[in-house]
Amino acid sequence: MREVAVIGVGMSEWGEVWKKSLRQIFVDAALAAIGDAGVDKIDSMYVGCMSSGLFIGQEHLASLLADYVGIAGISAARVESACASGGVAFRSGYIEVASGISDVVLVGGVEKMTDVSGDGATYALATAADQEYEGYHGVTFPGLYAMMANDHMRRFGTTREQIAHVAVKNHKHGAMNPRAQYPFEITVDAVLKSVLVADPLRILDCSPITDGAAAVILCPLDVAKKFTKKPLVKVAGSGSSTDTIALHDRDDFTEFAATTRAAEKAYKMAGAGPSDISLAEVHDCFTIAEICVIEALGFVKRGEGGKAAESGLTALGGRIPVNTSGGLKSKGHPVGATGVAQIVEITEQLRGESGKRQVKGAKRGLTQNMGGTGGSTVVHILEVV
Amino acid sequence: MREVAVIGVGMSEWGEVWKKSLRQIFVDAALAAIGDAGVDKIDSMYVGCMSSGLFIGQEHLASLLADYVGIAGISAARVESACASGGVAFRSGYIEVASGISDVVLVGGVEKMTDVSGDGATYALATAADQEYEGYHGVTFPGLYAMMANDHMRRFGTTREQIAHVAVKNHKHGAMNPRAQYPFEITVDAVLKSVLVADPLRILDCSPITDGAAAVILCPLDVAKKFTKKPLVKVAGSGSSTDTIALHDRDDFTEFAATTRAAEKAYKMAGAGPSDISLAEVHDCFTIAEICVIEALGFVKRGEGGKAAESGLTALGGRIPVNTSGGLKSKGHPVGATGVAQIVEITEQLRGESGKRQVKGAKRGLTQNMGGTGGSTVVHILEVV
Repeated sequence: MREVAVIGVGMSEWGEVWKKSLRQIFVDAALAAIGDAGVDKIDSMYVGCMSSGLFIGQEHLASLLADYVGIAGISAARVESACASGGVAFRSGYIEVASGISDVVLVGGVEKMTDVSGDGATYALATAADQEYEGYHGVTFPGLYAMMANDHMRRFGTTREQIAHVAVKNHKHGAMNPRAQYPFEITVDAVLKSVLVADPLRILDCSPITDGAAAVILCPLDVAKKFTKKPLVKVAGSGSSTDTIALHDRDDFTEFAATTRAAEKAYKMAGAGPSDISLAEVHDCFTIAEICVIEALGFVKRGEGGKAAESGLTALGGRIPVNTSGGLKSKGHPVGATGVAQIVEITEQLRGESGKRQVKGAKRGLTQNMGGTGGSTVVHILEVV
Repeated sequence: MREVAVIGVGMSEWGEVWKKSLRQIFVDAALAAIGDAGVDKIDSMYVGCMSSGLFIGQEHLASLLADYVGIAGISAARVESACASGGVAFRSGYIEVASGISDVVLVGGVEKMTDVSGDGATYALATAADQEYEGYHGVTFPGLYAMMANDHMRRFGTTREQIAHVAVKNHKHGAMNPRAQYPFEITVDAVLKSVLVADPLRILDCSPITDGAAAVILCPLDVAKKFTKKPLVKVAGSGSSTDTIALHDRDDFTEFAATTRAAEKAYKMAGAGPSDISLAEVHDCFTIAEICVIEALGFVKRGEGGKAAESGLTALGGRIPVNTSGGLKSKGHPVGATGVAQIVEITEQLRGESGKRQVKGAKRGLTQNMGGTGGSTVVHILEVV
């Protein structure tokens, strides 16, 4: 397998983007990435998107987007794995370049979530759970993650305040990110007084509904210097795994086994362990998710994820900064784009381009992107060469 | 890149499958392929599916299906490219094995199309066209293909009877396929007297709405003999391409440029040309499609696709038998499964397992699977080793 580099990154506007359609925000991100990479030819494209069918009534998405980017004729495919769609698309692009079948691959992620009315977005998102069981009983994701939160509090003594600290930290990071949907700080008190969604989770524990796109350009590492003069960032590790789709089929509600398995593969491939990681972007769709995820990644011991947020261990300046972008909570969560945007953040951090939120001396960054309640997870490790 | 073999194939029941759900028919196909291959471990899975969101309200499909096949924990991803989803999923699986990142990969395709009411299936299928232009003006696929048919008749003198011969031939083949949804013969007269759908296309020019799944197992060619004693079938060529998604953006309505480009790549990789192909499975979603496709693949000259059906050139026993399975027209067209089922048919033909419809001495087979009006196309060439 060939070594692969990320040579360009780009993002569209993120938020409630009323004046542009899905194809327009995707083109914005793709052209930004192409410009950043300095490439004049794309061989192949992967698009991560969870549900353009339910959100905007459009399938055949990769063909459409290749056409609108102006590169119809290339190979193009959409990849779906619910909220992990972007990360899985990145893995597909990585494998295609590593295999030697293509040289320059564009990986984009996109979701346009605000064009549905009523409870359309909640319905579309709920299709990431098992519709014949979980959906049939009316449970949606806030309820599923609330069960995890209750279990974590009961078993490990995690406090409601510790869980709130995840949101406070990520908003503090996001306030330094000009691309964030909600770039402002919040307090623990504000989280605890916000509207209850599914006990114990409140609205400020939940990532928002977001329109947005992100894109990156991959090529073989040995030719990357032809295109870019920026520091070279290579894909050092890639791991992907699944778990039971339904939460009720797991032995343990607070253990993300697919994250652990995907991370093991990525760590092994990179020849690195949790203590070698400078920073990470992880899937904080709800505050409790980040707590369970950093435990599954081995950043802290089992049961200590809540304390990590409270103590500042995962904050900028802490031992292992997590979600310097603001995470899904503050930066926003256009589901299919999230996994690609994580790669954008880590690439820029490794290049030293992150301004106020720069992690000093960052050498190796990790991304963790998951679907549903962790039914699918993909982990990547990027290194500056 | 490693050479890759197809070592197992399987299909579910195809037709109006009222008593089983999507996950059940997928499991039927996957277990059949696993049994045929003789493998006891799967590393990774790709699922081709166009729109489980719109057809059954379920996304996160690969995670769910890995769980129900009993292999949760593996890497799994869904691939979507409208009606080319199955073929593109096969290409993804091929690339993953070729790259060396995984050894044994299951590629499945599935669609459950009869669980929607009213015009739900027509709506879901129409999302493969450009919704902001074609969809906005109310055009659906029969109308788009009817425009191609009219143009082909006008420019090349193709007759209505010649177009009907495609359906007659494919039903003749399908009548010999126990898995076909409509395994009976029809006549030119029956086609010409069937209900008009979009002038000049009639109901017997159109592929049906089908529930069905298909699956194949891939592994490196050099270890394939460990698993199976059947004749080894290798992937000799793979090509993928896109075109403008909207028909109105093309210079020529009857030229499938993405098919031509994908085929050129596959022929080059296989070191073969059209005259080296023993048989082909092509995307006859409408009769006129097969006519334009065999021209784009180079089996006949431009404008002579209609004559090929009429003369028997593409029938079993002809120079280049096309759609020995019955094609989409007679075998059925569960859109996400079709591209994988084409691989099943070619593999069985190359192994000499096709019974009454066996192409004698078949050495090299081609599959062509496309989305929408050819906005995406994937071509594979398989060879018996």
